[in-house]
Amino acid sequence: MTLTIDLQQESLTQDQITELREMRRRCARRILLSTSLAASGHPGGSLSSLDILLVAYGMIRHDPSNPRWEGRDRFIESIGHISPGVYAVLAEYGYFTEEDFLQGFRRTGSGFPGHVETIVPGVEWDTGNLGQGISTAVGMAQAFKMQDKNNRVFCLMGDGENQKGQISEALRYAHKYRLDNLSVIIDRNHLQICGSTEEVMPQPIGRVYEALGWQVLRIDGHDYNDIFTALKAALQNDSGAPLLILAATVMGKGISFMENKAKYHGSPLSPELLADALAELGYENDFAAWQKLRKEPVRTRTIMPPRTDYPSVQPGDPILYDTETLIDNRSAYGNALLSLAEANNREGETPLIAGISCDLEGSVKMGGFHKHSPSAFFEAGIQEHHAAGMGGALSCENLVTFFSTFGVFAVSEVYNQNRLSDFNHTNLKVVATHVGLDVGEDGPTHQCIDYLGLMKNLFRFSVFMPADPNQTDRIIRYIATAAGNHFVGMGRSKTPIITTEDGQPFYGTNYTFTPGRADWLRRGSDATIITYGAVTPACMEAWQILSDEGVSVGVLNMASLIPLDEDAIIEAADQGPILTVEDHHVETGLGASVAMALLDWGKSTPLKRLGVSRYGASGKPAELYADQGMDAASIAEAVKELIG
Amino acid sequence: MTLTIDLQQESLTQDQITELREMRRRCARRILLSTSLAASGHPGGSLSSLDILLVAYGMIRHDPSNPRWEGRDRFIESIGHISPGVYAVLAEYGYFTEEDFLQGFRRTGSGFPGHVETIVPGVEWDTGNLGQGISTAVGMAQAFKMQDKNNRVFCLMGDGENQKGQISEALRYAHKYRLDNLSVIIDRNHLQICGSTEEVMPQPIGRVYEALGWQVLRIDGHDYNDIFTALKAALQNDSGAPLLILAATVMGKGISFMENKAKYHGSPLSPELLADALAELGYENDFAAWQKLRKEPVRTRTIMPPRTDYPSVQPGDPILYDTETLIDNRSAYGNALLSLAEANNREGETPLIAGISCDLEGSVKMGGFHKHSPSAFFEAGIQEHHAAGMGGALSCENLVTFFSTFGVFAVSEVYNQNRLSDFNHTNLKVVATHVGLDVGEDGPTHQCIDYLGLMKNLFRFSVFMPADPNQTDRIIRYIATAAGNHFVGMGRSKTPIITTEDGQPFYGTNYTFTPGRADWLRRGSDATIITYGAVTPACMEAWQILSDEGVSVGVLNMASLIPLDEDAIIEAADQGPILTVEDHHVETGLGASVAMALLDWGKSTPLKRLGVSRYGASGKPAELYADQGMDAASIAEAVKELIG
Repeated sequence: MTLTIDLQQESLTQDQITELREMRRRCARRILLSTSLAASGHPGGSLSSLDILLVAYGMIRHDPSNPRWEGRDRFIESIGHISPGVYAVLAEYGYFTEEDFLQGFRRTGSGFPGHVETIVPGVEWDTGNLGQGISTAVGMAQAFKMQDKNNRVFCLMGDGENQKGQISEALRYAHKYRLDNLSVIIDRNHLQICGSTEEVMPQPIGRVYEALGWQVLRIDGHDYNDIFTALKAALQNDSGAPLLILAATVMGKGISFMENKAKYHGSPLSPELLADALAELGYENDFAAWQKLRKEPVRTRTIMPPRTDYPSVQPGDPILYDTETLIDNRSAYGNALLSLAEANNREGETPLIAGISCDLEGSVKMGGFHKHSPSAFFEAGIQEHHAAGMGGALSCENLVTFFSTFGVFAVSEVYNQNRLSDFNHTNLKVVATHVGLDVGEDGPTHQCIDYLGLMKNLFRFSVFMPADPNQTDRIIRYIATAAGNHFVGMGRSKTPIITTEDGQPFYGTNYTFTPGRADWLRRGSDATIITYGAVTPACMEAWQILSDEGVSVGVLNMASLIPLDEDAIIEAADQGPILTVEDHHVETGLGASVAMALLDWGKSTPLKRLGVSRYGASGKPAELYADQGMDAASIAEAVKELIG
Repeated sequence: MTLTIDLQQESLTQDQITELREMRRRCARRILLSTSLAASGHPGGSLSSLDILLVAYGMIRHDPSNPRWEGRDRFIESIGHISPGVYAVLAEYGYFTEEDFLQGFRRTGSGFPGHVETIVPGVEWDTGNLGQGISTAVGMAQAFKMQDKNNRVFCLMGDGENQKGQISEALRYAHKYRLDNLSVIIDRNHLQICGSTEEVMPQPIGRVYEALGWQVLRIDGHDYNDIFTALKAALQNDSGAPLLILAATVMGKGISFMENKAKYHGSPLSPELLADALAELGYENDFAAWQKLRKEPVRTRTIMPPRTDYPSVQPGDPILYDTETLIDNRSAYGNALLSLAEANNREGETPLIAGISCDLEGSVKMGGFHKHSPSAFFEAGIQEHHAAGMGGALSCENLVTFFSTFGVFAVSEVYNQNRLSDFNHTNLKVVATHVGLDVGEDGPTHQCIDYLGLMKNLFRFSVFMPADPNQTDRIIRYIATAAGNHFVGMGRSKTPIITTEDGQPFYGTNYTFTPGRADWLRRGSDATIITYGAVTPACMEAWQILSDEGVSVGVLNMASLIPLDEDAIIEAADQGPILTVEDHHVETGLGASVAMALLDWGKSTPLKRLGVSRYGASGKPAELYADQGMDAASIAEAVKELIG
């Protein structure tokens, strides 16, 4: 590394300051060159944050030769658009060469994307959407606190960004959990895209943090000693309160004609102005030479692979619910989670399983887990956006993280937070209860009928919907042990144990859940009902009705919706017509997936789709199902129509 | 009405207080009976908010015989779960009978759902998801301010609810726009589902509001004179600052064994405890009689129809872009919006068209509108959740409201706010720019590839994706004049004018946009490419490549994705194989809709779907399309494979 600063120093030495000035000059050049070369990007904020970044990487623990060294402090750039500044500084500290950065910046297939991503050595988190980095940082700080680790966490934010509401959720959380290993640094340049922050959306940022229990240090964000003193306080903070460093800065700092100009937030310099700026910095203008280099194929040497360092945990002993049992899947989830805690969060050892809920611990059945593993249970309050974001981060710090709340809050409301977790290859287990019309009387605002329609858009989430408590138990154990992002949804009501034709639990002792494998609950030759989740019992009833009438229908439980069991669908298609039944929007769920699978395989099987075809009412689930044609009688009727 | 309070009074009279006590007793009975009868619901908060509601409806302007009287003040219950309290009070003030309420509460098909909905006379807004009512209230207050109307707006919130981040966005907005016609009342009972607010997620609520520039009055929420004095201040507030009334209350107030018990947040009394409570209130126990009545069919007499009182606006004169024009659809949107402003926001008259943006006015091309109609343009800052919620409300107050930002912010991030607008039959026009891989270098966090996959889940939103500036112009004029919720999406890049085979603008002077009607840009007999939006030009190029090779392929522009033109799809299917091409997740967009339509109509046409099959990179759109097999050459190749 070019520069290291000792925490024991009272202040920076003159040599260090001189060196920082030289570093700044080199980095400013890279910022301006990279954005002008890409003809896009964000030079203004990169220059205002630059001094903070330069001092920070000289003080925090990190290792450019081992970017994912466990002992490192974490520095999250929530303002992901200042990538030119971040890459410039990481190049300065030896994470990669300047050439790789300038040749590749914002080019398809390079390792230097427009917003910071973890494919870049030294970058901790893919960011871009504002206001979310702090939840990531809080998640990491929470993990370290709980694990008794001394890693420190920093989050660099913009001042405009501080208008995002999610930040207030994260601030409250960090205060509640006394995360003094966490510091936020705000690049307070008073400018956002449309003008001054005072004009666009005024607020006294420091006072808001203070009101929410944070310590606040106000510094000059271009004074190296000011930055040093504040970061030293941050690295030594043991006050119980998280720290805000409010750094007064200048947008476009260091280039005379860029300073305090909002337009440079997101506009690079033209080649002509770049020439002036480089001259001001004392550099030759080598723009043309770089342009030529960028005509050649991308030559990035190091693209960091996705994280895979997730803890392996024990699945514990499956719980078998006998056919007399009548509980809801939520309770089976709660029991499985407790069992996972017993197997993996052992007395005197650091827990490996974490749980997060949002003022719904009882409803989502996390009470047993909470009681068993109080240090690994995090009550985030009615702050779902923060909780979901924090969950992703927590899951990357040696914790298999279960995030549970109602479906509308776990999916419909925080879809974008899950999306960002997905970009980051997290290890998050979103277990949503209260999905579908099965929510009942709480009515349409609380009926999540889009869980699959939404989660389908995320490339790395699997989606599983158990049919009964036994299957719930196995699926929960599966997702705990399988790395990556998983979504599991379940209704609210008690639901019978699915049985074989001879009355044994279908998901019995020999059952293991396998993603992408559907289960033939019943075989039949005239048609197939494909279903999942809360309406499975109604489909089984319909099977009985039809069976009594001499109609032979198969029932296929598609609990694994992503990945989908296309083989089973084709098998069904080869037998006869297909009816899909789901407690979900009828246009965006299983029915849509089956239609695509059929046509992908060239099948013209008659297909009818039953599901939710208008917003639900407030009433008992059975009434709501009947109301939307998904009760057993309607299902049987639909099968008969299909058979013709 | 039972009670009216004169704003000129210094304080309440003894008679009024006596009357309020009697009203409270009757309402408390209804709250307890209704929830015990439904065996679900939220009695605790209903009792803590009760006194506030009773005094408020005695003071605000409203007319039970004309619930949607234009001159009324607006009272938004953001805590939608206190429906028993709201319905009890509305019954007291004569909006409907107690019998209708108690007989129907939480029954399918009744007019009395579990969370407050506008089907109930006197209810202003469907709520349920917490933290959103304030954005609704802000939107209404903003409309009245701009329209120079003296209606006042109130928003009743819970204290736990105040953990939601969106609230801080709304607070900042109300402060910036000096909405002193808006007051928030917080039912500060210090309890939420999982315990005390101090334990679950502590915060000094009053200090937070004060830091954000609000006035705060602290009162006893069960003292009628305290409530009166505070509401009087609210109704007469002209300070320029919005007002918070922080009302100290007791959960379960008035029933000895329910007071300060968190469990009664969401649990009704058992029949036994109900008997005790009714006795405490001095009532006979008529639970059994009501139970019997509830065995009969629902007999709600009045279910309010959806709002339809939207202003009719002029479409203005279409702008024709000639074939030499090369602009982006965003600019055509901006031009159309300005033209709509010129036609409808006339000098000296109240504007009928409003615009909201989130620090992206220039990028979303709202600059012309802003300049023309400064009083009708609202800059919401980087606060998309609030902006989307407020937009829905604004659109219900005589303003055709355009909400514009990038796709990821307008859809992926605020899906749930749009969902709530949809419940409320709003008149919102969400026009999202920067959708798809067409966003380019800003990379995956900024590439909205799920706009259709998400919006499809909302039953009342249409979805239109124009193919060129001419079609953009007509679609924007269409959505301005057509009541209801519309989504329009467009990419970032400049895009050529679509032409007929003889080189004229395809969407020329004679074109009128019709929802549910697709356009055959080219006819062909061997196969059909169905596409829309930013990749239409690539499909036209592919048509040329194929045409040159003697392959006759049709190109169908499906700009209206919801509603879908199924006739055109069937027409294509009857001709030959179909290829769908879209700048969207390949599993959740047009391809899925076409697959369902084909099978719904019993067609086994070969179908191939091209689209985004993994998260996009950071690079130029053309590179990204090639990278994901959506450039002209790949499209032509896919057609040839399909034909075989």
